[in-house]
Amino acid sequence: MAVKLSEPEKLLPIKGIRVASLAAGIKKSGSDDLVLFEIADGSQTSAMFTRNVFCAAPVLLSRKHLQLSSPKYLLINAGNANAGTGQNGMEAAESCCKLVADETAAKATAVLPFSTGVIGQNLPVEKFAAAIPDLVKQLHEDSWLKAGRGIMTTDTLLKGISRQIELDGKTITITGIAKGSGMIHPDMATMLGFVATDAGVSKELLDSCLQESVQKSFNSITVDGDTSTNDSCVLMATGQSGVMFINDTDKNFEVFKEALNDVFIYLAQAIIRDGEGATKFISLNIINATSEEEARKVAYTIAHSPLVKTALFASDPNWGRILAAVGRSGISLDIDKIEIYLDDVCIVREGGRADSYTEEQGQAVMSRDEITITVDLKQGQKSAVVWTCDFSYDYVKINAEYRS
Amino acid sequence: MAVKLSEPEKLLPIKGIRVASLAAGIKKSGSDDLVLFEIADGSQTSAMFTRNVFCAAPVLLSRKHLQLSSPKYLLINAGNANAGTGQNGMEAAESCCKLVADETAAKATAVLPFSTGVIGQNLPVEKFAAAIPDLVKQLHEDSWLKAGRGIMTTDTLLKGISRQIELDGKTITITGIAKGSGMIHPDMATMLGFVATDAGVSKELLDSCLQESVQKSFNSITVDGDTSTNDSCVLMATGQSGVMFINDTDKNFEVFKEALNDVFIYLAQAIIRDGEGATKFISLNIINATSEEEARKVAYTIAHSPLVKTALFASDPNWGRILAAVGRSGISLDIDKIEIYLDDVCIVREGGRADSYTEEQGQAVMSRDEITITVDLKQGQKSAVVWTCDFSYDYVKINAEYRS
Repeated sequence: MAVKLSEPEKLLPIKGIRVASLAAGIKKSGSDDLVLFEIADGSQTSAMFTRNVFCAAPVLLSRKHLQLSSPKYLLINAGNANAGTGQNGMEAAESCCKLVADETAAKATAVLPFSTGVIGQNLPVEKFAAAIPDLVKQLHEDSWLKAGRGIMTTDTLLKGISRQIELDGKTITITGIAKGSGMIHPDMATMLGFVATDAGVSKELLDSCLQESVQKSFNSITVDGDTSTNDSCVLMATGQSGVMFINDTDKNFEVFKEALNDVFIYLAQAIIRDGEGATKFISLNIINATSEEEARKVAYTIAHSPLVKTALFASDPNWGRILAAVGRSGISLDIDKIEIYLDDVCIVREGGRADSYTEEQGQAVMSRDEITITVDLKQGQKSAVVWTCDFSYDYVKINAEYRS
Repeated sequence: MAVKLSEPEKLLPIKGIRVASLAAGIKKSGSDDLVLFEIADGSQTSAMFTRNVFCAAPVLLSRKHLQLSSPKYLLINAGNANAGTGQNGMEAAESCCKLVADETAAKATAVLPFSTGVIGQNLPVEKFAAAIPDLVKQLHEDSWLKAGRGIMTTDTLLKGISRQIELDGKTITITGIAKGSGMIHPDMATMLGFVATDAGVSKELLDSCLQESVQKSFNSITVDGDTSTNDSCVLMATGQSGVMFINDTDKNFEVFKEALNDVFIYLAQAIIRDGEGATKFISLNIINATSEEEARKVAYTIAHSPLVKTALFASDPNWGRILAAVGRSGISLDIDKIEIYLDDVCIVREGGRADSYTEEQGQAVMSRDEITITVDLKQGQKSAVVWTCDFSYDYVKINAEYRS
């Protein structure tokens, strides 16, 4: 069902990052569900987490560990979110970190835990205990594809990508994997993203890179407006390519950042393309706003409108629903100026149906499986892009029947 | 499909209000689609309109006319929203008011127009011209039921109610009708509500009555968060019962306000019970918040979560989804204190699954067709109630296939 998405044939290894994945029996399906990343000494690691107040135990513990140590291992399980599990969940997450520490030379605080899966069930720590020795033994630079599969839950396709750029004769590689059919599954929870590069990046610069890339990617997608208790994203930079970025005035830094943004945007869009029940990939392009915040407000109001989303599913060029969504987005605007386009077809001009518009034109655009809706607010110079999908019978089916 | 809703067998006339309804050919179905209210001299009338920036021509014109004259007639059509119709729409609305004025002794500015139906099609003024003379002739005190049917669009049942109270030996009657399968249909648009009483109420007091009643009723319901271009609500007070309220210190005024609130709440809940595809009626009861605004924020975040709504449709006691919705509602809260109940069953305590909770208990509540979800925030003394419905295949079906 995924909209124009295929699995990567290969993912390039990153010098300084070793990866392992195996089936620990946490997922009912018996497929891989436990993944370990090992980060070489001298690397830098940045992480961002869900803004949901109800965050899961592993999120709380990862945040705490990041204050205490430089991360050496990332331990990720799928099949159980360890969320809504109270004190027991916190102790379970701590035990799992300790299990990795016992098997390696690392301190427990140098292990960051990540979980995704069903909310409210206790983490089966005994399964971690049985699997972690093997997991550590299997660490290898070339296991990214296997890890990409190990973190999947309701995803129908593995999501991963590698990019290489040449800078002053040296090659920089970036590889990333992600999972999550969107924020649409707080109980088969979560967007998770893990990206690594062999560029060297100072901690401060890496933090700002991650924030910028996440803003342009994972924070610019929505399936249904629900955010999860477990959303996490990690960026690792090993420096083993020999290229080092210390400050943002380096002329090559912009090139690197652009490649990094590409990786993040690919992964974020892949999540939408594989959104539950998605049959269409929609870009919302809000232009000429007075601020980026204003543009994002309009974009998200359209993206979250069940009426717009069901019309997109039905390939119905129902411009009245888009117009009404813009109208209730809470920004101040001059309705007589506004223009709305479906791809290159103007459907609304001066606050009403465009004179030139015909239903046939709208129908032609709507039958495509990738559509850009452009809203020209004509009141400033800022813009924003948000990606989303349509809203189908299958969305209701998947989410209504998930536990039955 | 409506959840525990039946049509009223009769609606009581209000002295000083005459009503007419006929089929003018605006609806394709050929059923009644044009309604006229006549308000006796000496009455007071208050009105509230949609907050959507893209409001329809009749909303703009009604607002303008209210500034200029005391309303004498309300002209309502179903089948065409006269929204997104630009200058043409404004002229059409003005023409319709003039048609009523020509047929009566009223000024055109004493006529308030209301429209509900498809967005973006020009209003067939010639059909109004042909029908209005007959409409005026048919004005009668006892035509409320017929009018209730005339304003319907996608509603499956007529929504109306009458209440009587005795105050100091005198009888006050309140009758109201409403339409709208929710805000769910900006293009078969709109919530419309018309309520009249034979109590006498000063203009200032009537305005505050309407605001309070709407806040407790129409502003406390949601089907899908979409608000329409045409939402309007009117409250008329004729004074012909002989009971007069001048200021809010009158001991009987509280009794009257309570009866009025009952009428508004009944009509608002009726809209949710007849929500498109609704199979369950849900009350969201948020208690012990620091402010009413905070409580409403939590209530609406739950009410708009497609994940919660699909779980309700599936009768799945998926407390993780409710908990995650509370967590992303944007208020500051102490998750370790929070409690969540399905009817009288505690499902979340201290931020996690309640120890006492069993899946069987949750399942028993979820199988009901009226469910109260109570969230105890334990951080203040304020509360809010919001009513909503579940999210079914039929919602997608109705909204995806509406125009095809």
